[in-house]
Amino acid sequence: MAVPLPTRRLLPLSLGLFQGALLLFFALFVTYDKPSAQAEDANLVASQLYGIFPLLQDIQVMLVVGLGLLLTFLPHYGFSALTHNFLLLNFSTQWALVLQGSLHHFHHGQVHLDLHNLLTAEFAAVTVLISVGAVLGRTSPCQLLVVAACEVPIYLASEWAIITRLGVLDVGGTITIHVFSCYFGLGVSKALFGAAQRPVHPKETPTPRSDLLSLVGMLILWVFWPSFVAVLCQPGDAQHRAILNTLLAMSASTVTTVVVSSLLESDGKLSPGHLQNGSLAGGVAIGAMADMAMPPVAALALGSLSSVACVLGFRFLTPFLARKLALRDQCGIHNLHGLPGILGAVASIVAILVASEDTSGSHFSQVSPTGGNASEASWGQWGDHRAGRQALCQAAGLAVAIGGSLLAGLLTGAALRLPCLARPPERLCFDDSLYFKIQDQAENPGLGDTAEEGALALKERV
Amino acid sequence: MAVPLPTRRLLPLSLGLFQGALLLFFALFVTYDKPSAQAEDANLVASQLYGIFPLLQDIQVMLVVGLGLLLTFLPHYGFSALTHNFLLLNFSTQWALVLQGSLHHFHHGQVHLDLHNLLTAEFAAVTVLISVGAVLGRTSPCQLLVVAACEVPIYLASEWAIITRLGVLDVGGTITIHVFSCYFGLGVSKALFGAAQRPVHPKETPTPRSDLLSLVGMLILWVFWPSFVAVLCQPGDAQHRAILNTLLAMSASTVTTVVVSSLLESDGKLSPGHLQNGSLAGGVAIGAMADMAMPPVAALALGSLSSVACVLGFRFLTPFLARKLALRDQCGIHNLHGLPGILGAVASIVAILVASEDTSGSHFSQVSPTGGNASEASWGQWGDHRAGRQALCQAAGLAVAIGGSLLAGLLTGAALRLPCLARPPERLCFDDSLYFKIQDQAENPGLGDTAEEGALALKERV
Amino acid sequence: MAVPLPTRRLLPLSLGLFQGALLLFFALFVTYDKPSAQAEDANLVASQLYGIFPLLQDIQVMLVVGLGLLLTFLPHYGFSALTHNFLLLNFSTQWALVLQGSLHHFHHGQVHLDLHNLLTAEFAAVTVLISVGAVLGRTSPCQLLVVAACEVPIYLASEWAIITRLGVLDVGGTITIHVFSCYFGLGVSKALFGAAQRPVHPKETPTPRSDLLSLVGMLILWVFWPSFVAVLCQPGDAQHRAILNTLLAMSASTVTTVVVSSLLESDGKLSPGHLQNGSLAGGVAIGAMADMAMPPVAALALGSLSSVACVLGFRFLTPFLARKLALRDQCGIHNLHGLPGILGAVASIVAILVASEDTSGSHFSQVSPTGGNASEASWGQWGDHRAGRQALCQAAGLAVAIGGSLLAGLLTGAALRLPCLARPPERLCFDDSLYFKIQDQAENPGLGDTAEEGALALKERV
Repeated sequence: MAVPLPTRRLLPLSLGLFQGALLLFFALFVTYDKPSAQAEDANLVASQLYGIFPLLQDIQVMLVVGLGLLLTFLPHYGFSALTHNFLLLNFSTQWALVLQGSLHHFHHGQVHLDLHNLLTAEFAAVTVLISVGAVLGRTSPCQLLVVAACEVPIYLASEWAIITRLGVLDVGGTITIHVFSCYFGLGVSKALFGAAQRPVHPKETPTPRSDLLSLVGMLILWVFWPSFVAVLCQPGDAQHRAILNTLLAMSASTVTTVVVSSLLESDGKLSPGHLQNGSLAGGVAIGAMADMAMPPVAALALGSLSSVACVLGFRFLTPFLARKLALRDQCGIHNLHGLPGILGAVASIVAILVASEDTSGSHFSQVSPTGGNASEASWGQWGDHRAGRQALCQAAGLAVAIGGSLLAGLLTGAALRLPCLARPPERLCFDDSLYFKIQDQAENPGLGDTAEEGALALKERV
Repeated sequence: MAVPLPTRRLLPLSLGLFQGALLLFFALFVTYDKPSAQAEDANLVASQLYGIFPLLQDIQVMLVVGLGLLLTFLPHYGFSALTHNFLLLNFSTQWALVLQGSLHHFHHGQVHLDLHNLLTAEFAAVTVLISVGAVLGRTSPCQLLVVAACEVPIYLASEWAIITRLGVLDVGGTITIHVFSCYFGLGVSKALFGAAQRPVHPKETPTPRSDLLSLVGMLILWVFWPSFVAVLCQPGDAQHRAILNTLLAMSASTVTTVVVSSLLESDGKLSPGHLQNGSLAGGVAIGAMADMAMPPVAALALGSLSSVACVLGFRFLTPFLARKLALRDQCGIHNLHGLPGILGAVASIVAILVASEDTSGSHFSQVSPTGGNASEASWGQWGDHRAGRQALCQAAGLAVAIGGSLLAGLLTGAALRLPCLARPPERLCFDDSLYFKIQDQAENPGLGDTAEEGALALKERV
Repeated sequence: MAVPLPTRRLLPLSLGLFQGALLLFFALFVTYDKPSAQAEDANLVASQLYGIFPLLQDIQVMLVVGLGLLLTFLPHYGFSALTHNFLLLNFSTQWALVLQGSLHHFHHGQVHLDLHNLLTAEFAAVTVLISVGAVLGRTSPCQLLVVAACEVPIYLASEWAIITRLGVLDVGGTITIHVFSCYFGLGVSKALFGAAQRPVHPKETPTPRSDLLSLVGMLILWVFWPSFVAVLCQPGDAQHRAILNTLLAMSASTVTTVVVSSLLESDGKLSPGHLQNGSLAGGVAIGAMADMAMPPVAALALGSLSSVACVLGFRFLTPFLARKLALRDQCGIHNLHGLPGILGAVASIVAILVASEDTSGSHFSQVSPTGGNASEASWGQWGDHRAGRQALCQAAGLAVAIGGSLLAGLLTGAALRLPCLARPPERLCFDDSLYFKIQDQAENPGLGDTAEEGALALKERV
């Protein structure tokens, strides 16, 4: 299992260099906001903090613990999955802070840092965490860092184009985060692994124990998802609506996932993979319209539909794509983020068009303008013309997210083929012991294999 | 392990039908509250949201992650325990929303939905999650759904009778939730399993690993329990008191559980089951009087007493009931919810009577009426007469909760004997592989058995 | 594995006695605060509650779940680690409540209890939880209780001397909690185990599974650490700054840990132990200056430096101390709490001195005095004289924390040698089955050993 010296040192040296550059950037340019000068302001700061901080903590739990555990379904790769996820989150957030600071906040030679900046930087990091799910277990940490280094600036550009230029409504990141990161990840996977078909790796199959931990991760994500969708909403009614819609959508997803997964199998058994993903599909899809003034049934219906799409994707589309395009998608990100994301974008278009025709006011009541939120839709008043334009923008935003991310992902994936990035050889994939000082040899016999298989595994590895 | 076709399809079809009916109901009747028209209202909505939303998240963590993990003590049934718990929570909450909406909120042909409704619907779901603990591992998902379908309306009726009609004080659900669901579950278990005595199932015994996960679940429940008790309290002093009382009661429970469990065994070793339950007993018992203006020592004493009752229940009462009444209680819900719940109800009676006699005002100071909470007791002023009446009401509420739930549980349990509900045969109980596509066969040899035992287990299962 | 009768009964009897005394103390002296008499006060109470309660819950999750899981890296000692941690937290908090109440709050014969008291009592308990990490696995519960009984009053005295008398600035407990508890724990370990060198115990080595659980514990601690540092800050800007500084420091720690751990090993693999500890080092170090008005780069730099110190400590200092002083430090508390704590204290001195010389105001802008927080530094104005005095105080506080705790720890450790405290014999160390009714024998063969090793282990244990 010998890794050549230059490769072994590439990860710490490049990471260390990055950390040094970050320190320099912060030393030169970054400050905190001036403290508030008056007591009333201090109270305002405190109450803003109580509004955003608990949600930020929820999101951190989702990303660090929930998503990390969700990725531990590979039985011999749990430590790597958790650690790489954690490292990528920190690296990408820091990188996004630097880029955001340089691009957007460069006033008077100083970059002001507050919790809101940190939160948007973390959102950029989320796209990386989702994308690398497509290549989980077959990539080295160096490759993952390159993905992060490329994806964060492209995400910031894409988000600027979609939200700022096109004015797309997408408070929960359905288009800008989920759709974008899914097709970026698929592009990376395609360009990295090429057209070769390969048999199932012996360590690719989950065990009951790894499936259980992954299920716990899904449950943690499920619980805190409303915070993720609602954190950037206008406080007040819009945020209340976003939370309720997310709760409804995810509840419908959960029940529908059980129905569809159970119907698909001849013996009526549920597939762990369907459960681990389908229950979250509603949360992905609802993001684009979570804060719109639509009737609750829309959230329920969207949640149900998206989990149907997710489960059918796992059952039919992923094997199909693997056969036809040799496309690998280790975690099924296309089923969890791609299909529900597209569905959510389409649903937001429908919601906008329906709302403009609805004159009764009973369901799509006008949003209060007192919130003062420029990006919140008050398209109840717009009439058909403005609603049509907004609907077109949503469609254009979806197209930009898919097209741009796929292209950028393919280029990034091609860069990952550089030999110095130390892609693990096939027989060492999906194994913690390649990256961590872990006694997996001694453990293997007990990990669901007989002693003979364990001995074989040991031999094979040398 | 062949399940007949109609049975295999009953679960997805009935669940799917329910989900469709829910969509229809929401489409026809349910809307969100009108958005607030003015800026001050928007601020109010926002601050109410910050008051209730973090507590709702805490409660969701308790139910989805904490309670789910607590139930994974059966080593081969962890995936089922987590998933069934999760599915039941979603199904029961939706079902309670429909029933609540139909019954209580039917004004002007529309049902208004907000976070508060959702929270009370989730409380209805909690009773289902507790009750099915009595029959964990020996019931099919179809049977569990029937339990939920029956228990939610009965709970709503019982809660209406106890809280609205009798005016019982029970802010943390000691009587309406814990006592009710315990005896409902015991009724189901008795009617379902009849009088047959059966030997211990080989998969019924926890392993160190499953005990550890279950302990983690208990710890999560323990941490967030104050949110469960306090979420419906009047904001301000009452809520502050409820949180403090719950923290004190659970802290005393923890220490006392170790004392009693250790004293009961001749070798002084602690039983994992005692720890997993006894530490929570204080939280169950404190609910009925958590927001009352009583001295802190009462919370400590109640916490200690309830954990004594819980541990003694596990050690003596459960085996006694199993021997005499052939009553099965897989999770020991009678010890965690029944005995501490009754204790808590009695304690609330004592607290009310003591408070009315206490004229010094030093301990039971009068509750501020400014909160404007009609249900909050200001019985410091009442004098003996009103306190006596309130004490009688508490006792009557307890009797209604026990009697009604036991009767309804027995009837529900009888309904579960319908053959179409696919109760698993004894030898397939406590096994995930009956419901999930999980490679338990390959895993078994490593799960604490030798390879020979694994092979035997495989053979036995065919 | 027979434990003599008096020893077997010592734990429950002493714990029971303590619990009885606690009840008596509460009955005689402790009350809640008077309810607020007016509506505005009720709103104030509610908003204060929403400010402190979510942070308290976060801290409880850290201590009960996060720290508990972090300690489960010993593969056969997970149940004990979680339970002892949980029991010690409850016992120490109650004990601290009694002592705090007696010492500080004895006005008019009554002790008033609120969430703030409870929080500071929990902080006293944290020191115990950290200290016992040095002797994890080799001590009986009785010994751990003695440590708690001794450490809590000494901590309260030390905290009074450092904060109240010397006026040290240490909002996140870097000096008063981390440095103090580290050297207390090392003192206990030294006095308890003496100078004997012993070989590695066969159950001392983590398995992949136990390392994974421990990593999850670290991640939970990592996520909620900002709440721990910021909970006692002045609401408003200072709290906002403390949260941001902690987030930055811990993010830098995470990346730097990977760099340093990877550089230290010839094959570039990461050590699980480094990851489990190094990523938290920044949180330990930042506490003393988290709320100071310093530039963000200082937090990043301190986070990086502290994780370097932590990883180097694990790699070089711990083996060195073990060889030269026969000092055992099972969890490496010296590397996680000692070295980063000292670094943080020194950094706070530097920050104070730099701030006093910085007259441009661009980086160290003056703290707004409107917060009304007496302990918050507004040393921007002080000039060199006051800053120098404050720097001296910080240094004196550090010296008191180290010296006092080391001495007290040595004395406590000597007391632990009393035979009645039932220190487990070497061959029974690191094993749950000594304290819990757990079927570890049946499980062992599957727990990462071959069947032969399992049989051996069984034999050895009899």
